[in-house]
Amino acid sequence: MAVIECVPNISEGRRQEVIDRLADSLRAVPGMRVLDVQSDATHNRSVLTLAGDAAAMTAGIPTLFEGAIAAIDLTSHTGAHPRMGAVDVTPFIPIDGVTMAECVALAKAVAQDVASRFNLPVFLYEDASSNPERKNLEDIRRGEFEGLAAKMAKPGWAPDFGPATPHPTAGASVIGARMPLIAYNINLATNRLDVARKIATAIRMSSGGLRYVKAMGIPLEDRGIVQVSMNLTNYEKTPLFRVFELVKREAERYGVSVLESEIVGLVPAAALRQSVEWYLRLEGFSADQVLENKLRSRSAE
Amino acid sequence: MAVIECVPNISEGRRQEVIDRLADSLRAVPGMRVLDVQSDATHNRSVLTLAGDAAAMTAGIPTLFEGAIAAIDLTSHTGAHPRMGAVDVTPFIPIDGVTMAECVALAKAVAQDVASRFNLPVFLYEDASSNPERKNLEDIRRGEFEGLAAKMAKPGWAPDFGPATPHPTAGASVIGARMPLIAYNINLATNRLDVARKIATAIRMSSGGLRYVKAMGIPLEDRGIVQVSMNLTNYEKTPLFRVFELVKREAERYGVSVLESEIVGLVPAAALRQSVEWYLRLEGFSADQVLENKLRSRSAE
Repeated sequence: MAVIECVPNISEGRRQEVIDRLADSLRAVPGMRVLDVQSDATHNRSVLTLAGDAAAMTAGIPTLFEGAIAAIDLTSHTGAHPRMGAVDVTPFIPIDGVTMAECVALAKAVAQDVASRFNLPVFLYEDASSNPERKNLEDIRRGEFEGLAAKMAKPGWAPDFGPATPHPTAGASVIGARMPLIAYNINLATNRLDVARKIATAIRMSSGGLRYVKAMGIPLEDRGIVQVSMNLTNYEKTPLFRVFELVKREAERYGVSVLESEIVGLVPAAALRQSVEWYLRLEGFSADQVLENKLRSRSAE
Repeated sequence: MAVIECVPNISEGRRQEVIDRLADSLRAVPGMRVLDVQSDATHNRSVLTLAGDAAAMTAGIPTLFEGAIAAIDLTSHTGAHPRMGAVDVTPFIPIDGVTMAECVALAKAVAQDVASRFNLPVFLYEDASSNPERKNLEDIRRGEFEGLAAKMAKPGWAPDFGPATPHPTAGASVIGARMPLIAYNINLATNRLDVARKIATAIRMSSGGLRYVKAMGIPLEDRGIVQVSMNLTNYEKTPLFRVFELVKREAERYGVSVLESEIVGLVPAAALRQSVEWYLRLEGFSADQVLENKLRSRSAE
């Protein structure tokens, strides 16, 4: 069965009863799993991690919007985190048995649905965006709820769906689709921070490196070594093995060895398979050949 | 949840109603999944592929023995495949969330149970064997049903459980635990069969190579290249990456390149993770970090 991850960020991190009620309304949706709820009172924001198929998302996400719009009033909302909507941002992430194109279609369908049901302006972002100026969340959200009416009046800032002016209490929402992030670090057998920084500069997109790599060089003071600390934002197009091999090659230039690497948090199984296939020069290998996948896929029998 | 694979081989490949009844009796066991049933009339033998946890196996396998012993009479059984029991051989294979030690314990418990319930001699084999002379199935089964009474009368051939003489119609059974096999081939960018054969000789256990590798060199006539064709019988102890790197190194000696490799059939996810960890020098990585595993493990929430 297809698995889509969805990580709505809502502008409520203080009233636990509101957060619980919204999470419970999602738990009641068939096929929807609430994997995690993290609330931050300082940010006054909660991050929900959901998993399910397209049907669960189509049914569940509008329910979340309904509850959040009824409970959250941005005219009196304060918090450290930038926000412009009651449900501030909602990314759909393809995990298993689902394509990015399907997640983009899902994002657009949900956006259209909540815009018309709740008279709410919705902006599409990341892979669902059709406008390069409105691809990054930060660009869309700049000015926040307080600056939203003025921003939406400017050329180029009509929403993708819904009315041309903000919802009076719920602002506007950002909905889209993106790949899962991989937090990936490579430790170097040296204490030379300049080397880690030069390598980070060489490999990250912003300074001319690989398209889907964000990187910085940092010291690991307690171990007396340095680290190239990275976010890989699309492992299909910029795979783990290529990042590792390029860092290793750049380090050689300075006479430095790669000590080890680490994946922080979660990684899709496909990202691991991709690297095995490259190193072992595997031809004609498919995910169906992974024993566990086969055992699971036959579970209906 | 733990997943154990079990692949009982039964001495019936012709009477479809008997095979169906035995498979159905397994399907009725809670937690037991019947993934595959392959029958061969010439061999007069069926291979069942089952998956489940230890409780499902403990409940289900004796049910299979009960039905097979009632239905199968080896005194009138003919077929091309060697056999000595109604349920001829029953391996338990650790797949996910279960150790080999647990599969060995399960094999012994099931062996003791069916031996006492059905007055059946049972021999333990592979990782469950406590006797190096009785580790390989072929050694235990040599002489087959027809030679069983004479064989069991010899020193060293008392069964691990059950009576010292064969069951009159069901013979004796072999039960044990083993690792999943990986069929792994490496293609060389040459048509020199002697090179493939020299490499196979170098890397396989039987001629001094790696402990859990069986290998031979064969020509791929239609492609004009040669292949080192292998079975890896314990990927935990003799991992994919080590086999690949050793073959690559041996090939270099002859000025030959590795063209590609292939996995035929199924491979445990752990075997792939192991190779990614080695090549990327990953430290502190665990299966829990694979996104799909996390999504599945939280399904109860």
